[in-house]
Amino acid sequence: MALKLSFNTWAYSSYPSWLPAYTLEETIKRLARIGYDGIEIGAASPHAYPDFLSESRRKEIKNVLDGEGIALSSMLPAPSGGPCNNACSPYPEERRYTVDNYKKIVDLTAEWGGKTVLYIPGWTLFGTERREGWAWSAEALSEIAGHAAQYDITLAIEPTSYDSNLVDTGDHAIELMNEVGLPNVKLMFDTFHVLYRREVMTDYVYQMGADLAHIHISEENRMPPGHGRGDFESVMTALKEIDFTGYVTLEIGFDHRGAEPDWFAKEAFTWLKERA
Amino acid sequence: MALKLSFNTWAYSSYPSWLPAYTLEETIKRLARIGYDGIEIGAASPHAYPDFLSESRRKEIKNVLDGEGIALSSMLPAPSGGPCNNACSPYPEERRYTVDNYKKIVDLTAEWGGKTVLYIPGWTLFGTERREGWAWSAEALSEIAGHAAQYDITLAIEPTSYDSNLVDTGDHAIELMNEVGLPNVKLMFDTFHVLYRREVMTDYVYQMGADLAHIHISEENRMPPGHGRGDFESVMTALKEIDFTGYVTLEIGFDHRGAEPDWFAKEAFTWLKERA
Amino acid sequence: MALKLSFNTWAYSSYPSWLPAYTLEETIKRLARIGYDGIEIGAASPHAYPDFLSESRRKEIKNVLDGEGIALSSMLPAPSGGPCNNACSPYPEERRYTVDNYKKIVDLTAEWGGKTVLYIPGWTLFGTERREGWAWSAEALSEIAGHAAQYDITLAIEPTSYDSNLVDTGDHAIELMNEVGLPNVKLMFDTFHVLYRREVMTDYVYQMGADLAHIHISEENRMPPGHGRGDFESVMTALKEIDFTGYVTLEIGFDHRGAEPDWFAKEAFTWLKERA
Amino acid sequence: MALKLSFNTWAYSSYPSWLPAYTLEETIKRLARIGYDGIEIGAASPHAYPDFLSESRRKEIKNVLDGEGIALSSMLPAPSGGPCNNACSPYPEERRYTVDNYKKIVDLTAEWGGKTVLYIPGWTLFGTERREGWAWSAEALSEIAGHAAQYDITLAIEPTSYDSNLVDTGDHAIELMNEVGLPNVKLMFDTFHVLYRREVMTDYVYQMGADLAHIHISEENRMPPGHGRGDFESVMTALKEIDFTGYVTLEIGFDHRGAEPDWFAKEAFTWLKERA
Repeated sequence: MALKLSFNTWAYSSYPSWLPAYTLEETIKRLARIGYDGIEIGAASPHAYPDFLSESRRKEIKNVLDGEGIALSSMLPAPSGGPCNNACSPYPEERRYTVDNYKKIVDLTAEWGGKTVLYIPGWTLFGTERREGWAWSAEALSEIAGHAAQYDITLAIEPTSYDSNLVDTGDHAIELMNEVGLPNVKLMFDTFHVLYRREVMTDYVYQMGADLAHIHISEENRMPPGHGRGDFESVMTALKEIDFTGYVTLEIGFDHRGAEPDWFAKEAFTWLKERA
Repeated sequence: MALKLSFNTWAYSSYPSWLPAYTLEETIKRLARIGYDGIEIGAASPHAYPDFLSESRRKEIKNVLDGEGIALSSMLPAPSGGPCNNACSPYPEERRYTVDNYKKIVDLTAEWGGKTVLYIPGWTLFGTERREGWAWSAEALSEIAGHAAQYDITLAIEPTSYDSNLVDTGDHAIELMNEVGLPNVKLMFDTFHVLYRREVMTDYVYQMGADLAHIHISEENRMPPGHGRGDFESVMTALKEIDFTGYVTLEIGFDHRGAEPDWFAKEAFTWLKERA
Repeated sequence: MALKLSFNTWAYSSYPSWLPAYTLEETIKRLARIGYDGIEIGAASPHAYPDFLSESRRKEIKNVLDGEGIALSSMLPAPSGGPCNNACSPYPEERRYTVDNYKKIVDLTAEWGGKTVLYIPGWTLFGTERREGWAWSAEALSEIAGHAAQYDITLAIEPTSYDSNLVDTGDHAIELMNEVGLPNVKLMFDTFHVLYRREVMTDYVYQMGADLAHIHISEENRMPPGHGRGDFESVMTALKEIDFTGYVTLEIGFDHRGAEPDWFAKEAFTWLKERA
Repeated sequence: MALKLSFNTWAYSSYPSWLPAYTLEETIKRLARIGYDGIEIGAASPHAYPDFLSESRRKEIKNVLDGEGIALSSMLPAPSGGPCNNACSPYPEERRYTVDNYKKIVDLTAEWGGKTVLYIPGWTLFGTERREGWAWSAEALSEIAGHAAQYDITLAIEPTSYDSNLVDTGDHAIELMNEVGLPNVKLMFDTFHVLYRREVMTDYVYQMGADLAHIHISEENRMPPGHGRGDFESVMTALKEIDFTGYVTLEIGFDHRGAEPDWFAKEAFTWLKERA
């Protein structure tokens, strides 16, 4: 069975802080028409910040997804901005917000038919001991996963070495998964961060194996595969070897103004479809 | 009288999305000890997201500011992330949040003794007419400025051509100021955006003149003055010529991982102090 | 029906200020023989400055166009040089010249069988308020369009962010069109300027839609499509989706000495013909 | 006696085709206040296109020059744009315009107290024999110089290898001077064009010697001296050795958008003043 392809919405949503931006409806339609099986929706403004979505708008989006025949592969919060979303903050108010916000994202994912929410473990401020931040993050993850269990939704832990200091590697993610020890807490990785650490992408695939619930594909500089130094041929082969059933999800094209989202979506789709 | 110098906290706060980060207390102390007259505080996590600040923590921060003898030059929201802070969003929930969040920032500024809040006019999504976005932003600004009047706090409109599409130039900011027509709505500009537009920084100083309430200094790539092509000697001269009484505020060092905040703060301070 | 292709003459006419240059007759023949459906003629020396064209020479050029079977897709003035052609000049003599020169270009376009004249809204000098420049430009456009109506010639407003400060975006052009409110005032855009602004080219196509009367195709650095980062595949698709009936016109190869005009004309033709 | 310094106005006048631009009055004041002895005025819009200058405006400008105590070192036409100004055009209408436009520039120079007008010999189109273009240019120069004699104004022939094909070198200029054989036809050169040809700047100084009436100083890329590979120390020394009494005139900062004119004017002034 061919690998399923998905595309993350940041490039269409003015995140982290630039133009252009499209409505979520428009974004869903474009990705569906390019041929993607799934869409990964960033749970942030203007697309899908839970607090801003009325009942009717949630239904509207669900209808667009169904009408276009594209699945919600996954959701994730924006790890920055006003309230941030940092499970390792030294401030209890921020940690409380983070857990609550994740729960709302889980609810939204369920409502839109998704089964996967990404868990970004957060980062510590200077002055917080790593073990303390780790404990906060593990605690948050447990509570969120407990909430997600009712929907059969999985939390996939993502090591983010480029912009964090807590879970930087596959080993760290595995450690956290094991410590939390819940059946719906699994793993994922983003090739961008692996390349940033100068590690080997396929090592992550084989190491995570059956626990690999999700994957982000991106070259350095958030370019599509085929536009950089990464050996993505081997990544695709490795995913097939481990019988990966999740969505091969592109998280690209959002790191500098001037990127044309459709180009990234099409270019990556063409490259991956041939190898899926 | 010498020009007053201030430093923006993004570089110390993991914004937009990377490390390292320091507590606000630590940041205040470092900047005060380098010699800055003022500090510009980003009203975002982990430093100062209004919803997360308890009564006691607000007082604590005020005490640190007073104890270190450094003034709050200004505050501003993070224009991105989960709820964003976009006055031109097509969604009423987001616009409501934006105005309310600004009001809380105004309250916080008053509590910490500041007199200036930056107003970032926002950006339109594809499908929103510019005039419609403009009307929403003008309406938001009016409401916020009305709230700020009680504290004698000024809203300074910032053209942000690099990451918006509504108020890109000094002319646009002046138009918005005139349209709103309130005594506490004034102007500012960020040299980074002027350089991005390939315009002349001193033109903005002379054009805004007596209405220039605030200024952000940054080279291209968010480097300190003296590390690029910009003519900052002339900017300093022009500020003196128009009898600028606000804070010359550095907003630098936060656009890529690996920047050492103290280096930026010290390097810029040394360069500017000689010319202030 | 296939999209029609045209090529702008700057690269063959030593504009803005370098070699080599060919006569207009030679240029027409070369472009016709490459296969272009149309030619966009710059109304400037040495090709077609209206004041310098005798009755007999006008007929001669018309004969060459007819003989080679290539249509006049459009004309435009040179926005620089001695008298400039700036509708926003603070000097009434220059504004008068600009309107009169445009009228002569309109007459010439009619004589040579064309239906489209490009309107470049101009730029303000430091010290002119944007709104004042805007009013001058709108007034000029109204007068020119009034004159053009007798020939059923359309004026197409071009946003030129790279070298102006009045009409920088599609939104601005739409605002100007709406303000002037004449049936023969429509829109165009140049992909070069859209790329310079780091915006998305197809956004302009969809936004302008039925009002898009003309288009300039150019990569960054005035290179042909396929020689840069722009997603021109999507542009061609979008033009077909909106049933664009104008000329897809290349304005390339004229920004630095050393460009060989025929290479640009052929390279771009090959790339576009396959996708037209 | 120290060498006199002058600055050319292109960088302040949106020539060839970009922003920003200042009025001529503003430009005169800025250059005078930086310390320049003279100003070289481009006889083009928006500054000084002869046809657009009313009697009263001419007087106004004269008053500003006198009031600021800065001399008109020289004038020159813009060699491009609508009517161009090409003495070698194959079209008699354009050649007539060129001579007449030069005469008007000469009149204006006289009125504003100048003694030097630059003569740019023009360029031939493909199909014109060099000797034919040469004859046209020599004829034009004779007529212009004849007109200038009444005011004791000198025409200085400028080799412009970067953007012409007729008078590319010092030798060509000397040949043209000798052929015309009028006492008020002299020589000049622009170091930018010498560097472009990979020749030696001081060779031009010594070769032209007593006939050198004017000089343009510019690094490659129109940068100020000290910002490139050119040996300008030797140029200054050579000028003193030949007892040069003209204006050492900067023609820089106008070849790309984003240049801040004042920076170029100040940076070059500082460098040259020490060596003048």
